[in-house]
Amino acid sequence: MSVKTSSNIVVLLFMFLTVSSSYNHEGNNKHYKPCKRLVLFFHNILYNGNNKANSTAAIVAAPEWGNLTILTSEFHFGDLVVFDDPITLDNNLHSSPVGRARGQYIYDAKNSSSSWLGFSFVLNSTDYHGSINFIGANPHPLKFRDISVVGGTGDFFMHRGIATLMSDATEGQVYFRLRVDIKFYECW
Amino acid sequence: MSVKTSSNIVVLLFMFLTVSSSYNHEGNNKHYKPCKRLVLFFHNILYNGNNKANSTAAIVAAPEWGNLTILTSEFHFGDLVVFDDPITLDNNLHSSPVGRARGQYIYDAKNSSSSWLGFSFVLNSTDYHGSINFIGANPHPLKFRDISVVGGTGDFFMHRGIATLMSDATEGQVYFRLRVDIKFYECW
Amino acid sequence: MSVKTSSNIVVLLFMFLTVSSSYNHEGNNKHYKPCKRLVLFFHNILYNGNNKANSTAAIVAAPEWGNLTILTSEFHFGDLVVFDDPITLDNNLHSSPVGRARGQYIYDAKNSSSSWLGFSFVLNSTDYHGSINFIGANPHPLKFRDISVVGGTGDFFMHRGIATLMSDATEGQVYFRLRVDIKFYECW
Repeated sequence: MSVKTSSNIVVLLFMFLTVSSSYNHEGNNKHYKPCKRLVLFFHNILYNGNNKANSTAAIVAAPEWGNLTILTSEFHFGDLVVFDDPITLDNNLHSSPVGRARGQYIYDAKNSSSSWLGFSFVLNSTDYHGSINFIGANPHPLKFRDISVVGGTGDFFMHRGIATLMSDATEGQVYFRLRVDIKFYECW
Repeated sequence: MSVKTSSNIVVLLFMFLTVSSSYNHEGNNKHYKPCKRLVLFFHNILYNGNNKANSTAAIVAAPEWGNLTILTSEFHFGDLVVFDDPITLDNNLHSSPVGRARGQYIYDAKNSSSSWLGFSFVLNSTDYHGSINFIGANPHPLKFRDISVVGGTGDFFMHRGIATLMSDATEGQVYFRLRVDIKFYECW
Repeated sequence: MSVKTSSNIVVLLFMFLTVSSSYNHEGNNKHYKPCKRLVLFFHNILYNGNNKANSTAAIVAAPEWGNLTILTSEFHFGDLVVFDDPITLDNNLHSSPVGRARGQYIYDAKNSSSSWLGFSFVLNSTDYHGSINFIGANPHPLKFRDISVVGGTGDFFMHRGIATLMSDATEGQVYFRLRVDIKFYECW
């Protein structure tokens, strides 16, 4: 990563820590300030039978009525996808990645669009070295979806927090980009 | 949800907070009191090839010797099931659901009946709005099995705790109902 | 478990608590002492089409180009394995097991050897009774890989920490043994 992108992430981080440091989670009146905050993007290109070299994800399990190259109809219920997605500092797929988002998502709803996530960010940049572990429910129709940051290693040793997901772009069944706003409330 | 069921959950919660607030976990002498407690039920109807409309769960992966409509013999080792189960306040499948239990369970033992769980409760009632994230081992022969509550969002922001599972009903391979006694020890 | 192995684990535990109690995680200068530490081994024997009785793990999902008896080429990306592995106090597969490691691992990288782990230790010995829940990224080329201990039950009630994995032995695609150094930093 160049010095330029390195300073970009510092500026981004600073901006968020000063401008939006007061966080009011829905449903109660308490205000918590994150002890650390990171905004990152990751990019998912799903294998569709014709894009093996470029794809970053593949359906590996599906219900009896499904298959491994096309997401099932009816909200894709039961499809399990393994992914190895590049993480970038901005919304450009071709930006230099600062790490990989790796794990699984499972379409887990019969009557709405929703997924269950279990994955890790493996960061390896001049600014961050370590992993962040996530699990949670991701109901796609909501603009912002909160999942749990259940632990971390390296620079994120023992951290916990909340990650707010936003669908930043979707192109048919092949590409989506998620914006991940990670707010740590336990930092060690 | 009606006012009646709404007040029911308050009564239930109150009952547990007063009557059973002292919790002695096995294996040590310390007593902890949950800062919040919820008792809920969820209902799993497994797809068997003939009940697609009514089913809430489907086998999506199985070992080489298995298939996607019948659980494998020998404790179903290797079967992975995705579920989207209704959550109710009582043990009646037809009660008005207060949310969905979504995620996966994996039969994970070769010589006993056991599963590994990774799932979320997505609650959306007048009383609770938010998600609770669970992982853990579920050895079925034990009457009570403890798994970890590793995080939550919304009303359960950053919560941690223990959920005690009990099999409340089982009908062949198609239906089971779990009683989930969620005890939060970190509430924020 | 015999009295002899029982005292072995106490000696092992004592040794680590006294000799290596000061832990400096990479990437920051803080030193933390684990409140509890356990070093254990587990043994994975993958089903390959011919070893069903002896195997402890099976591929249950694979991408379109894979199958359920041979790990896919290209770093096995997309293969999902369910396991029920014996846990031992030393590196001998035939030592008396103190519990089972159960859950899943997913090969999750296209251009390197890496897996995503979601599993539990279910311990049942004279010294320990309870479960420990893990998730995290496991990049195999590194000698030591840290994952998160996100919770526990029984003797490990509400515990959190870090587990450092080391590949202790590998025999082709069928057998591997992992050394797991579990450091709890929250003990309750």
